[in-house]
Amino acid sequence: MKLLKYILPVLISSLAVGTALAADAPAPSPLEKAIGDVATMRVGIDTLWVMVAGILVFFMNTGFGCVESGLCRQKNTVNILAKNFIVFAIASLSFYVIGWGLMFGNGNALFGTSGIFGVGGDDNSPATGDAYKGAYKAIAWAGVPLWAKFFFQLVFAGTAATIVSGAVAERIKFSSFLIFSFILAAVFYPVTGHWIWGGGWLAAKGFWDFAGSTVVHSVGGWAALAGVIVLGPRLGKFGKDGRVHPIPGHSMTSVFLGVFILWVGWFGFNPGSTMAVGDGSLVAHVFVTTNMAAAMGAIGAMITAWLLLGKPDFTMIANGCLAGLVAITAPCAFVSAPASLVIGLIAGVLVVLAVIGFDKARLDDPVGALSVHLVNGIWGTLAVGLFAKNSVQPGTAGNGLFNGGGLTLLVNQFIGVVAVGAFTFIGALVVWFALKKIMGIRVTPEEETEGLDIGEHGNESYPDFLTRAPGSRHS
Amino acid sequence: MKLLKYILPVLISSLAVGTALAADAPAPSPLEKAIGDVATMRVGIDTLWVMVAGILVFFMNTGFGCVESGLCRQKNTVNILAKNFIVFAIASLSFYVIGWGLMFGNGNALFGTSGIFGVGGDDNSPATGDAYKGAYKAIAWAGVPLWAKFFFQLVFAGTAATIVSGAVAERIKFSSFLIFSFILAAVFYPVTGHWIWGGGWLAAKGFWDFAGSTVVHSVGGWAALAGVIVLGPRLGKFGKDGRVHPIPGHSMTSVFLGVFILWVGWFGFNPGSTMAVGDGSLVAHVFVTTNMAAAMGAIGAMITAWLLLGKPDFTMIANGCLAGLVAITAPCAFVSAPASLVIGLIAGVLVVLAVIGFDKARLDDPVGALSVHLVNGIWGTLAVGLFAKNSVQPGTAGNGLFNGGGLTLLVNQFIGVVAVGAFTFIGALVVWFALKKIMGIRVTPEEETEGLDIGEHGNESYPDFLTRAPGSRHS
Amino acid sequence: MKLLKYILPVLISSLAVGTALAADAPAPSPLEKAIGDVATMRVGIDTLWVMVAGILVFFMNTGFGCVESGLCRQKNTVNILAKNFIVFAIASLSFYVIGWGLMFGNGNALFGTSGIFGVGGDDNSPATGDAYKGAYKAIAWAGVPLWAKFFFQLVFAGTAATIVSGAVAERIKFSSFLIFSFILAAVFYPVTGHWIWGGGWLAAKGFWDFAGSTVVHSVGGWAALAGVIVLGPRLGKFGKDGRVHPIPGHSMTSVFLGVFILWVGWFGFNPGSTMAVGDGSLVAHVFVTTNMAAAMGAIGAMITAWLLLGKPDFTMIANGCLAGLVAITAPCAFVSAPASLVIGLIAGVLVVLAVIGFDKARLDDPVGALSVHLVNGIWGTLAVGLFAKNSVQPGTAGNGLFNGGGLTLLVNQFIGVVAVGAFTFIGALVVWFALKKIMGIRVTPEEETEGLDIGEHGNESYPDFLTRAPGSRHS
Repeated sequence: MKLLKYILPVLISSLAVGTALAADAPAPSPLEKAIGDVATMRVGIDTLWVMVAGILVFFMNTGFGCVESGLCRQKNTVNILAKNFIVFAIASLSFYVIGWGLMFGNGNALFGTSGIFGVGGDDNSPATGDAYKGAYKAIAWAGVPLWAKFFFQLVFAGTAATIVSGAVAERIKFSSFLIFSFILAAVFYPVTGHWIWGGGWLAAKGFWDFAGSTVVHSVGGWAALAGVIVLGPRLGKFGKDGRVHPIPGHSMTSVFLGVFILWVGWFGFNPGSTMAVGDGSLVAHVFVTTNMAAAMGAIGAMITAWLLLGKPDFTMIANGCLAGLVAITAPCAFVSAPASLVIGLIAGVLVVLAVIGFDKARLDDPVGALSVHLVNGIWGTLAVGLFAKNSVQPGTAGNGLFNGGGLTLLVNQFIGVVAVGAFTFIGALVVWFALKKIMGIRVTPEEETEGLDIGEHGNESYPDFLTRAPGSRHS
Repeated sequence: MKLLKYILPVLISSLAVGTALAADAPAPSPLEKAIGDVATMRVGIDTLWVMVAGILVFFMNTGFGCVESGLCRQKNTVNILAKNFIVFAIASLSFYVIGWGLMFGNGNALFGTSGIFGVGGDDNSPATGDAYKGAYKAIAWAGVPLWAKFFFQLVFAGTAATIVSGAVAERIKFSSFLIFSFILAAVFYPVTGHWIWGGGWLAAKGFWDFAGSTVVHSVGGWAALAGVIVLGPRLGKFGKDGRVHPIPGHSMTSVFLGVFILWVGWFGFNPGSTMAVGDGSLVAHVFVTTNMAAAMGAIGAMITAWLLLGKPDFTMIANGCLAGLVAITAPCAFVSAPASLVIGLIAGVLVVLAVIGFDKARLDDPVGALSVHLVNGIWGTLAVGLFAKNSVQPGTAGNGLFNGGGLTLLVNQFIGVVAVGAFTFIGALVVWFALKKIMGIRVTPEEETEGLDIGEHGNESYPDFLTRAPGSRHS
Repeated sequence: MKLLKYILPVLISSLAVGTALAADAPAPSPLEKAIGDVATMRVGIDTLWVMVAGILVFFMNTGFGCVESGLCRQKNTVNILAKNFIVFAIASLSFYVIGWGLMFGNGNALFGTSGIFGVGGDDNSPATGDAYKGAYKAIAWAGVPLWAKFFFQLVFAGTAATIVSGAVAERIKFSSFLIFSFILAAVFYPVTGHWIWGGGWLAAKGFWDFAGSTVVHSVGGWAALAGVIVLGPRLGKFGKDGRVHPIPGHSMTSVFLGVFILWVGWFGFNPGSTMAVGDGSLVAHVFVTTNMAAAMGAIGAMITAWLLLGKPDFTMIANGCLAGLVAITAPCAFVSAPASLVIGLIAGVLVVLAVIGFDKARLDDPVGALSVHLVNGIWGTLAVGLFAKNSVQPGTAGNGLFNGGGLTLLVNQFIGVVAVGAFTFIGALVVWFALKKIMGIRVTPEEETEGLDIGEHGNESYPDFLTRAPGSRHS
């Protein structure tokens, strides 16, 4: 730390005036020096914003762990927390080793082929535009150092992997989940990510997803749906008489903490996807659309639950908020503030209907991950085609259907939803089936009844408290 | 995300050199370009700081929810969490729809009248000073985009609404609370806010409240006091024999989490109220005064509790910290570091005495919200009149009584405390009474005994755990 | 808040062009003005980063409280939370009153002697290099205001004090712990800190510790080890038959929250220790090395526990992550990304072995603080000597053994480890013994059996829940 101050100016000035100054060039004029300082400072500010936003997205792992464990039974708490914890470590490794390069490496329309191992490609970031030379051209628009880009994209990859965790909770084998997560962050997420953010075919087609309703959330959702189908429902969830038995979660305090942490995290997820501060106006705009959609999602779900279920169920309010956040993720930088209220409100209604619908379809998703991430990931992606307004960020998505842009954008969005869904769902189905064949993906019925905490980890989550005997609460 | 880099420079340069350059003007010189870049960057940095600070303030909702639910019984946990969660969504809606304009819209000495619906007024922010043209002149001193100003002020409005929640906990009807919160964030908070931060009569008079000891905290406190009076105490709190029965909270872990999250959030609340980074010195100063007051509040309350109650009660330590934070909120940018230690220490003593006093007055405040926010909101506001030191931020509050400034400032602060208190308390009393008449504000005794979680929401907070039967623990 | 905008430009321009402009000098040219603005803005950005990083480090207190209480029994929860809460308040006071000056004040090779009371020395920060005049020359390399430096260093001092808390949990007297913490933050931490970061003899010798594997973590660890020895083990931990009885913690949810919050906090701890943004590249580099070491620590501990204990124990995974973070703290800015994976992986293995080893040595550390902070503080410090690579941050630590730098650096690191360890361990031992003699440091066996929550604080942590009778669970 001590000598840093002597070193930094050297680094800075060499970078800042690097292009203007050869080693033997005359000293820069005060004006040249000032221009160089300004350029360096812009890179610094943008990096600062990307790192802060990245921390917020990282923090979402905590939120997911709290929401998911809170919505499940105490006997499986350690297992869920351990999954949500280690999955980010696994994603860190796999996205470092291969995912980053597959997603952002120069390559073809389908995946990256350059510098795919160990973030090993050439890269002279923060150089942008024509000045950029290296292997990761698709993200050369962002004027921050390579490691800043990597960290920010890594926390997104981690999010996709985490989404699966909740849907398969309370019955999946820990070891199988680890392997699936590694593959998801190493291959599935990067490949469709390449199509959209890595310069692939969907980007070329005019598909727009600002911060990842599709790239992150519905990808996680499709992978989760495949898992839910292959795994089957938890014991006791669906009675032989066709009745659905609710299995309440063990801690609403955890759910509360988790949803608020996720809301906080989304202020990194969406506004941070600018990857630049600029004059602050786009960042501030995205903050407001993100916040309003979250608020209206919570209100929409509360009203829907109140009407349909008779009371303002807290888990519905919580999932309504998350639904609003997922839905605004794609359009947040393309739509106006009033539109964000509508998008969030609809998301809040959708999530309640979806939770009821998946139960009717006998697809057992303990935490509502499919209703939140898959259904509203799709809704948000399509909402771009409906509500996009060119004046919000000129020259990007253009105008959607409701702003006189016709059907083109909506159709492109629809194509993206279907293509990403088909690839991820089928791919995940294959992997889940293969894992089932090779090593099994489900714990024994005895372990499921007793709880996965002891079976998988040898831990109890709350050993000092008297709990209802496993199996006694929910028949 | 992809095309952003191509768009941003266009936006930036058009803004930065906007005044210097008509469409057909000659290209700017390198110096003009550099000056424009610097101006843009300053807006960007300030926006970044305002948004980060806004996130921290937003996070305070999580803290309030944890503290309040932790200090109440487990049978009411879901209800308290749901209130604290939805109240921010409600405030987002009402402050967007009307509150912002009432508070910051150009108008008279009492409230704003321009652009009051849907943040709908003209505004060319980040233009400042004479360059500003628009409907929100009172906040034109802040050189950030309109949406940044709105977001930062919204999270403050949400805080005021949240404060009420704790004081009325464990007996208020969910629906009535929602309506009251909407009105508070739409009308009460913005009106007195206009007096002080919106260019109204108290600002003109020379009343100083840097970050809201009065604007936010005592307003919330007065509204809460009215609620406590109209609602009456919880069943079993005050015995017929005149004895006070303590009703301990259900989770000190929640309290711990909540207080620390609030402390973190206050690093946005107070230093963020600069709404500009400048050379960083004022921001850094406010960090230190804020932190020292919090620390001394905790220490002061610990010592007071140890002396008066015989042991260092943890809930007192926690509330002492919050008391120090509330008290330093008004003076944080006007007083020296040593003064902040004194202000915090006194706050810590005051909060313990106030908790005991409110109990004696048979005003039932389950979480100590009145002692923290009302009593110390007043103390902090008056402390400006005592400890303000002109050299800390020249040309603002000037010198208080202890720095040779005489009584003028102290008298102004006192007038503000009384005026805001009278308006908010009487107004809130009227609304609470009206709600009581129209729809009732209190749950039935049966529901109160059983717990509001099932009665209001149909949820249990911790269904897997064996709990003491409702009503069995506290007679 | 209101008049700020009128004040700030005055402050800014006076600072920015202060050296160029005497009061009667001609107005600056546009270029001079722009250069001044750029200089001011750089200070502003750096301050913003230091404050944000400081908040993250502050937040680590929350994480430590959650991890430590979660790994202990519910009957001692309030006590642990209260300790972790008040310890930061105490450290705030003692580091303000004396610690800062002892650490950073100009003085001799052993401790500071100028401006040691109340941050009271002269200081014209943010002036740097030759322009700096004042009492805190050792930190004059950081170009931010004095209060920013103080706040950032304060949160580090608080961390060192907190580390002790976990190791002495479940048996230490609250009052004795308070006094020890005050002394640690006032004297022990600052003195060895002066040796390394305050311009003392170890800095002169070429000892490198970027963010505090030794300065913070092993210092906390040595003080904790002394406490563990003087206190003795908890009742029932070590049987007369030589058997070790595991005493599981009461909430894995708390542990999960705590570890993730610590991981988040470390993104301030390590990258923030740059205390400058520069062009962002060093900051981004440190983010990645920090993250990869944490991830590999978790993976390494999981695999080690799986192999040695038969199952992937969650508390081991959690401590493995912390071990990776502690280990990368010294080398994070001196080593490459691939090296950070190796350092973290080894830390994850070491922590599991150390936990088992301390149990064998009959040193009772309820939360594994010694294994995390002491063992891996040492490992991380030595890792600088092995993995340092000059090209990562030229002109600092240079090359370590594995990069052709020979043994010099490794030897210097070793000397620092031994010297700091000897001073802190012996000093702490003396203080613990003195406290034992004067006032006692351990609660009575009755209180230990019943739990410290009631004995020390008169609180219960979870009064609404049925718990196993104290003493019944663990014989």
